[in-house]
Order: sequence, then structure tokens, then C-alpha cells
Amino acid sequence: MSDQKKNEKGITPQSENFSRWYIDAIRKADLMDYTPVRGCIAFKPDGFELWERIQSKMDQRFKETGHRNAYFPMLIPESFFQKEKEHVEGFNPELPWVTEAGSEKLEERLALRPTSETMIGHLYSQWIQSYRDLPVLINQWANVFRWEKRTLPFLRTSEFLWQEGHTAHATEQEAREETMQMLQIYQEVVEQELAIPVWMGQKTPSERFAGAIDTYSIEAMMKDGKAVQAGTSHYLGENFARSFEIQFLDRDNQQKYVHTTSWGTSTRLIGAMIMVHGDDQGLVIPPRMAPTQLVMIPVGPGKLREKVMEKFDPLYDQLKAGGIRVRADLRDETPGWKFNEWELRGVPLRLEIGPRDVDNNQVILVRRDTGEKITVGLDRVVEHVEELLVHIQKTMVQRAVAFRDKHSHFTVDTLDDLKAHIVHQENVGEIAGWVLAGWCGEEECESQVKDETKFTSRNIPFDAPMEKKKCIVCAKESKYTVWFGRAY
Amino acid sequence: MSDQKKNEKGITPQSENFSRWYIDAIRKADLMDYTPVRGCIAFKPDGFELWERIQSKMDQRFKETGHRNAYFPMLIPESFFQKEKEHVEGFNPELPWVTEAGSEKLEERLALRPTSETMIGHLYSQWIQSYRDLPVLINQWANVFRWEKRTLPFLRTSEFLWQEGHTAHATEQEAREETMQMLQIYQEVVEQELAIPVWMGQKTPSERFAGAIDTYSIEAMMKDGKAVQAGTSHYLGENFARSFEIQFLDRDNQQKYVHTTSWGTSTRLIGAMIMVHGDDQGLVIPPRMAPTQLVMIPVGPGKLREKVMEKFDPLYDQLKAGGIRVRADLRDETPGWKFNEWELRGVPLRLEIGPRDVDNNQVILVRRDTGEKITVGLDRVVEHVEELLVHIQKTMVQRAVAFRDKHSHFTVDTLDDLKAHIVHQENVGEIAGWVLAGWCGEEECESQVKDETKFTSRNIPFDAPMEKKKCIVCAKESKYTVWFGRAY
Repeated sequence: MSDQKKNEKGITPQSENFSRWYIDAIRKADLMDYTPVRGCIAFKPDGFELWERIQSKMDQRFKETGHRNAYFPMLIPESFFQKEKEHVEGFNPELPWVTEAGSEKLEERLALRPTSETMIGHLYSQWIQSYRDLPVLINQWANVFRWEKRTLPFLRTSEFLWQEGHTAHATEQEAREETMQMLQIYQEVVEQELAIPVWMGQKTPSERFAGAIDTYSIEAMMKDGKAVQAGTSHYLGENFARSFEIQFLDRDNQQKYVHTTSWGTSTRLIGAMIMVHGDDQGLVIPPRMAPTQLVMIPVGPGKLREKVMEKFDPLYDQLKAGGIRVRADLRDETPGWKFNEWELRGVPLRLEIGPRDVDNNQVILVRRDTGEKITVGLDRVVEHVEELLVHIQKTMVQRAVAFRDKHSHFTVDTLDDLKAHIVHQENVGEIAGWVLAGWCGEEECESQVKDETKFTSRNIPFDAPMEKKKCIVCAKESKYTVWFGRAY
Repeated sequence: MSDQKKNEKGITPQSENFSRWYIDAIRKADLMDYTPVRGCIAFKPDGFELWERIQSKMDQRFKETGHRNAYFPMLIPESFFQKEKEHVEGFNPELPWVTEAGSEKLEERLALRPTSETMIGHLYSQWIQSYRDLPVLINQWANVFRWEKRTLPFLRTSEFLWQEGHTAHATEQEAREETMQMLQIYQEVVEQELAIPVWMGQKTPSERFAGAIDTYSIEAMMKDGKAVQAGTSHYLGENFARSFEIQFLDRDNQQKYVHTTSWGTSTRLIGAMIMVHGDDQGLVIPPRMAPTQLVMIPVGPGKLREKVMEKFDPLYDQLKAGGIRVRADLRDETPGWKFNEWELRGVPLRLEIGPRDVDNNQVILVRRDTGEKITVGLDRVVEHVEELLVHIQKTMVQRAVAFRDKHSHFTVDTLDDLKAHIVHQENVGEIAGWVLAGWCGEEECESQVKDETKFTSRNIPFDAPMEKKKCIVCAKESKYTVWFGRAY
């Protein structure tokens, strides 16, 4: 790989090669490292801190809606997977297996969990006896494994971190309401906190979770036009209840199967946040997610540093007291070096103060998202910073919405249109983005799109911006209006 | 197993059989369940909530002392273990191995981490180049595996949850200070939050962590007189630095090896908390650790419930607003049934209010730790509860200290004394507890104690209550004064 096309920060420009840009950006920002275990990364402190913030935002909302955390074994006996036919077919090719422990061969192979429906199904069958035990509303924060062939840091790794909610209900209606409630919580966190606009919708049958009746997702567009499935919520019906015999005695004295749901989000949200907001200067972290919201850097000649610090130190204390996540960079490096570093790391605001600023009773604020410089009176810094952080968060969502909408195409009506669209975009050096298309509901038509264009169905949005009347492949009357795009 | 000896709560009395008491108590309190995977338990929400509280108390202190969280791969290549000789010998017998993934056999076996010194050593060798990169202060919250032959919920399971800190320093002195700082943090959390008194001290060489220069521990006495090692902190010297080539260019332009430390506490703290405070009525949770600190239960005839609820509801709101972790039990069950349940779960305070209490403008508070009933004026409930919770926390530590000291023996001077002591205690139906004994420093003497009495060295306390001059086995001059006891 040649370094010639990297910019002065050592980052390949997005327009040059988006995948390289991504790797360069996350490495320069010190978020992760590769390890000798295939497809497994180390989350360095700056990367893990982003996950801790996502966790706390999610966990708070889970608890507010009555869920509690628990922890289940990571190892799952092979026989458990056999109990749900679709589930085993879906996950078997990706499972790592423990076959020995100490010096003994195990009698039954144990899988490293790819997800925990089976183990939890087995336990729920013992925990649930009566309608009084319902609903069961449990979430787990855990590591999971899917032995992927092609991996990409955060977005697809052999081991990743996630949360998986598993609930059991007396009725289908209640379980379906839970499925929707959790999807909405995902949308809320991802849009409001991570500043990523998403389409909520239903997955087509071919893209459903292995063992689910219905799968719903939130889908986000990255800056290369590809899609990231940012969270999924599944209505599992009685499938796992029947496989694992999860029955309860209802009020009417009848034995019934419970209706279960499961829902998950993972560390791939870190990758999505970077691919939606980052630019050629590095990361751009939304203020609500940023571990550091404001970095303070003294500037000007060293011999005047004392004069600057007389204002700098009280200002730091004020900002801290005001609840701003502030950091003072007093390292023995040039201001330019520091500017560069904090730009790479995506800190939303930089504050500069030098001797002349002290004379003028002012500071300079610099926005990471737009580069804009703002001169602010020293006595009003805290309120300005507060306002700016709110404003930046808002602007970042708006920009992401505008980007997504610009790259959403509504006039692609046939498969030939789509192929022509893809070629045309490539010719003009533009990304292909997503297309909204009609679909008759036949799996054959859906897979033809995939085979010929690598576009896959993202989801059937609940609130499509328009209705498409004809199937993009067979031109028959469409049953669904579907987002198609290439996906991570 | 006969149920005949269980009490009216379905719990085997401690005096009857402590191990059965423990299992009965944690099952009745719904903290965990067994699973079909050998030695792996499921942490149910009431059990996991205790871990979440321990985590938050620890994590806060780690961050206050400059540590940051990260996450490392769970799978560790076999060759990594080979690099540190003592380490591989110590852990090899307990390792589960992944040998296949998908349908392919792996070229190299991957161990499920028993601890992460090796993986982290490998990565630190790449992350650390210069003195400017030091110190590295990282902690990880993770699941770990040790394929144990005999398991006991929370205290010894094949998979457990823990935190492991891994730090690297430029000098031995700094690394040793870190080792001590973290041991002190453990002591602080365990004594102040979990209300468990501990002895801080150094492990003897035979009880050291595999690969450490020095291991330090905090040791707690359970109500059956056995010891739980409640946390360990290791000074690893240059051992792992040399095995994994973690070198840095120091200020003096010399390449040097870093000095590393590691330190850990785990979900066994849940077990210790139960075994130190629990009684024949079930758990007794210290107020600072209790997910629910006060449970409110309306009493008296149903037809007068409305009158009670007029006082009950505002009182609940007041307590909540006062920062008390309060819960109202309004289920359709008898007060007696509820009292029983919350006693089992160890909630520190119960509040009862009935129609007569309303007439008298009062409520009844009942302490879980002593059973004491206190009548309190309705207008002063919040302040009384606040005071009582502080008082209960204090009392629980004092009781645990008194228990420990009562069962610590200082006049056992020879191995024959110790054997006689054990027989005598058994004859009078008392627990054997711990003995403080002199030790010459020879491993032979230490292992003779173990072989003949099952008492093992717990640690060499920093602050021994007295000095023992002669070795308990060989009667030569002692080098160390050591706590000996049976251990979990």
C-alpha cells in the first residue's frame, strides 16, 4: 500500500479510498489495534470510551423501561443449537468450538455464543411457570463470536461486544409491542446521541434473524453510500418457546407457550458513528458522545505563558463546574501539533487563548465539524460553549440527514435503471447511495437484484418517503416499498 | 439430600451445614441458577445487580486514580502461554481450548483467557516505545475461564466475571507503588462498601500468582471460619516485559524493560458478602451495596387500605426524593409472605404502615440485621431511614470484625497445637477459624501444615496483631508472621 496518496495528517482522503480512510482515521485516533487472533481487535482506551458512553445511554433507557441486566454462560452445548432448525443453519458456519479443557476431550462440543437465544430459552423454561412470572424483561452485556471470513474493525469482527435483550410475554400483542418499543429506543439513542439518522423498518424474510418470525432494523447510510444495520429487534413468536418448552399456566388455567423477543446493538455503532461523521482531518465525534467535548490549548510565546495561565486555570475550573467534559492540553508540544492531534480525535470544540486574547479579554473557539472560528468574551465562555455544543449536535444530524437524502434515489424503477445508475455514478465519481424501489415480495426478484448489482434489501421502511408501485425486477404490482443498497 | 433439617424458610441452618445454607440462601434469594455447562452459572437479575454495584464502586475509584478501561481479545494463542514458563505451568491444567471454527480445524489452539497478561504483554510491546508512553494504566472488565474440578456458585466457577488491571511503568518503585495503591483501593471498597473486614498482606511464594515477583492479597473470614481471597495485586517485575519484549527508550537514551503490575477482583466478592453477613433467615446485604435499601409494605385489613395509602404514597415519594433506594411492595400477598421474601433477599430495612399507625401518625421500621423494630413519627421517616442505613452499615462491619477476631487464634504455637485446636473446636461444635503463626520461610514447613491440617497460608499481614517468634513446624526462628486457615 502506497502512502503517497495520504494527506498531511497521514490519512488517505475519503474521495480516494473510503476503506483506507476509515482504517487510517481510527488508527490515527488510537481507537484500536489489530491482534494475532484472526479478526479479533483490541479496543484501546479511546475506542472503548466511546463504547462506554453508548452503553450508558442504552442501559439507562433499558432500565427506565423495566429491563434488568443478567449474565448467561458464554459456552453453549452443541445440542442446544440443534433444537431450533433455522437457528442452527444460520449460525453453524460461523461458530468457534471448544473441544478440550485441561487435557481432557469434552464429551460434547461447546460453542462460543454467537447470540444467546438457545441458552436463555433453556433457562427461561425453568424460570417461567405461571402468568405471574411474566413478562420476563432481561438484557445482557456480553462478548459474542462469529468467525467471519472478511473482517473490518468495529463493523465486523470475530469477537465483538454487544447487548442482547431477551424477553418473554404472555401474548403476541405484548411481545410485538416490546419488539417495537426496543426498536424505537435504538432509533432514539442512535439519532439523538450518535447523531445518525436511520430508517426504521422491517427486514425482508431473506434478511431475517435465524429463527425469528419478524425482524426489524434501523439502517444508516455511511459516507461511502453503504448501509450499516445499526440495531435489530426480533419478534420470535413461539419458535424458541416450542423448541425449549417455555410454557406457562395462564389465568384461564391453560398451559401456553410464551412469546419471545430479542434485540441487539453492538460495537459496530462505533464504526457507524465514525463513517457517518468523519472527514479527511480524522474523526468528528458528536458532542453528546464525545468523552472530551472541549480541549483547551494555551498559545503564544512561552515567556508570556504565565500571563495566559492566570486566565486559563480559572476558565478550566468554570467549564468543569459547568458540566462540560473539558480537557487542558499543557503538554510540551507546539500548538499546531496539538490542534492536529485533537482534530484527529474528533473533539467537537477547541479553545485557544494567548497573550493577545488575554489583553482583549477574549478566547477563540474552533468548531471541529465546520472549522469555524468564533471569538468569545472571557466572561461568557461557559454559556457559549454550552450553546455551541447543542448547536453542533443539531448541525451534525442535519448534515447527516442532508447527505443521506442527497444519496437516496427515487426514480430507479427497473433493474436496468439500477445498473445504469450504478455505472453513471461511478463515471461521474459519485457514490451510488441507496434506491427506494418496489418489490413484489418474491425472493427470486430480491436475489436477482443482489446477484446483478450487489445491492441488498435494507428494510421496508415504516414511513417510506413515497410509495413505489411496481416491482423493480418483474414489474408486477409491488407489495412493498424497500430500501436497497450495498451493505457492510 | 434431605429437606428435614431446613427451617421454615426452606433454608438449612448455618450451624447444621454451612455449604447447604449458602446454596439454599442464594437460591431462595433468586441470585443465580445452575446451567447445563459444567461449572458455569447464570447470574439472575438480583445477583447481577450486586455485581453492577460492585463494578460501579470499583470503576469510579479506578478512574479517579487515572486508569482507563479497554477490551482485549478473549482468545489467546497457545504460543503466547509458552513465553512465560511459570505462567503456562500455573494455568495450563485449567484452560479450555478452541480447536475448530466453522468446519475448519485451527492451525493453532486458542485458549479461553484465564487472565490476560500474555495478550496484553504482546500488545504493550507495540504500544510502548518511549518513556513518554509510560505509565500505561489500563483496566478490563471481562469474562474469564478456569476449568475447575470443584465449583461453588460465585466463589469458584468455570466462567466468571472480573476486572483485571494491567499497568506498565518506567521504574520498579513506581510499579510497586501502583501494586500497593490498587490493593488499598480493594481494601477500601471491600471494607467500606461490602462491610467485610480484611487483612492486607503478602502471599507466600507458593501462593503467588504464576509469573509474579510478589503477590499481595486481601483476605476475609467467612462465617464458617474459612478464608476468601477477596482481591489480589501483583508486582510482576520485568518477567512479562522480558517474555514479550516490552522495552522503552528512557530519558537517558537507554533501552529498558518496563515494570508491570496486574490486579483483580471478581464475582466471588458476591459470594463473600453473603457468607460474611447472611443468617438463617437468608441474605443480609449492607445498605451501601443493597439494590433496594428499604421495602415499604402496607399492613392491616384490605378495607382500610385506602386510608393507609393516603400516607403511603407521599411517603414513598419523599423517600425516593431523599435518595433512598426504596421499593413499595403492593402485590396481592399477605404481609407475612412479603416480610419473609424481603428477609430472604436481605433488604436492610422494612417499613410497615397500617391503619393504626396512620391514627398514631407513625410507621414501624424493622432492621434486617438485628430484627429490631423502631417506631418513628411519620414526619421524620426520611431522616430516620438515612441515619439507620448509615448505622446498619457501621454495625455490620463491627459485627464482622468481632466475629473474625473471636475466631482468630494467637496461642497456637506448634503443629501439634494446631491439630489439637482443630479437634477441640470440632468437639465443642465450634469453627476452627484462623491461626496466626510463625513461619521460618521454608516451603517444606508451609506444605507440612497444609498436608496435615488443610490449613494454608492466607497472607503475611502488613499489620499483624502480634509477632510470632518461632516457626509453627520446625520451631526455628520465624521470619514471618502468617495467617493460616482453610480457604475457599
